[in-house]
Amino acid sequence: MQIACVLYPRFTALDIIGPFQTLVDLRGVDTVFVAEVAGPVPDHTGRCHLVATHTFAELSAPDVVVVPGGMADQTATAEDPVVAWLRTVHPSTTWTTSVCTGAIYLGLAGILNGLDATTHWAAYDRLGQLGAVPIAERVVRRGKVITAAGVSAGIDMGLLLAAELAGERAAHGVQLAIEYDPQPPFDCGAPWKVPAELRARVAAALGGS
Amino acid sequence: MQIACVLYPRFTALDIIGPFQTLVDLRGVDTVFVAEVAGPVPDHTGRCHLVATHTFAELSAPDVVVVPGGMADQTATAEDPVVAWLRTVHPSTTWTTSVCTGAIYLGLAGILNGLDATTHWAAYDRLGQLGAVPIAERVVRRGKVITAAGVSAGIDMGLLLAAELAGERAAHGVQLAIEYDPQPPFDCGAPWKVPAELRARVAAALGGS
Repeated sequence: MQIACVLYPRFTALDIIGPFQTLVDLRGVDTVFVAEVAGPVPDHTGRCHLVATHTFAELSAPDVVVVPGGMADQTATAEDPVVAWLRTVHPSTTWTTSVCTGAIYLGLAGILNGLDATTHWAAYDRLGQLGAVPIAERVVRRGKVITAAGVSAGIDMGLLLAAELAGERAAHGVQLAIEYDPQPPFDCGAPWKVPAELRARVAAALGGS
Repeated sequence: MQIACVLYPRFTALDIIGPFQTLVDLRGVDTVFVAEVAGPVPDHTGRCHLVATHTFAELSAPDVVVVPGGMADQTATAEDPVVAWLRTVHPSTTWTTSVCTGAIYLGLAGILNGLDATTHWAAYDRLGQLGAVPIAERVVRRGKVITAAGVSAGIDMGLLLAAELAGERAAHGVQLAIEYDPQPPFDCGAPWKVPAELRARVAAALGGS
């Protein structure tokens, strides 16, 4: 079973490394990083470079696709290489998934038409404009499409996906191996948990709505 | 302020990307990936390659050091390049930190002598053999040394560190930006939460004690 972790310039690193870490050690999976061009791909900070080992052209039938969010989706169009590739491979995937604003690429590819989906909280409106029905949940699963909320939500989604791919017993083992027993030191992880001022400040910094 | 994210062959990707993502967007920080040799460094799965932009030799006085765990620490010695570099830079850091079995490298460098510290649950014994006092907590802070538990604990540690470096207000903004409002689908993230059989199976897979 092949799992394709998508990269593109200005992706967000944790968006893709979260799911990657929950899936890569499962038995029988072949996890690869794929991008338009092989080689190092810079994240949205320009500080982190992850290496794509495969090109979109080389990867024509992945079983699972994971699309991270980042800071490039706001100007992405239906002609974006990620979007074009998604249109080609989605019909034959077992699971097509996104984290954060990775959902925007799914939307641009026409995969979310009329479908419940989630994304980063600052991008609900944009997701709706692409035909999806934005839902403020951590992980939204509809048929073979799974979308996760912002950045860190990819870990929660990854564990769900691990259970689908390899069974709950295997997923429990992954959770224990990565010691995922979260204890955030603050309680500011959702927009409805913080003052409007903080919400506005972060949305502005992200260039979101 | 310079933050050095350490890489070495067979590191675990989420160990370092968790803290990276909580720190990199803070104002006034210069976050870099550093390794013995610059260029792509393979993780413990061989599937993920992160690029080191700096060598240990080039980075002589980072303010903050973050050492990830991985699958190489079990054979590491006091002569390991990571350990040798830690001995050089630790005296002048503001914070020296580790995630997961990254603590083993701190121990080998003599940084944890008699000090409370944590690591991946499967490595408590090894940490104790290096002179540390293993503590089963998510994040342990003693003076300028902060150690975090396995893999995903680096996110919790990173948020604490973000508050130290830039204030709680900034850390709250980071938590909201990465939408860190965890909702694990299972409750198997700590060794005392799972059956002994699962614990034994995962410890064996990790080669742990």
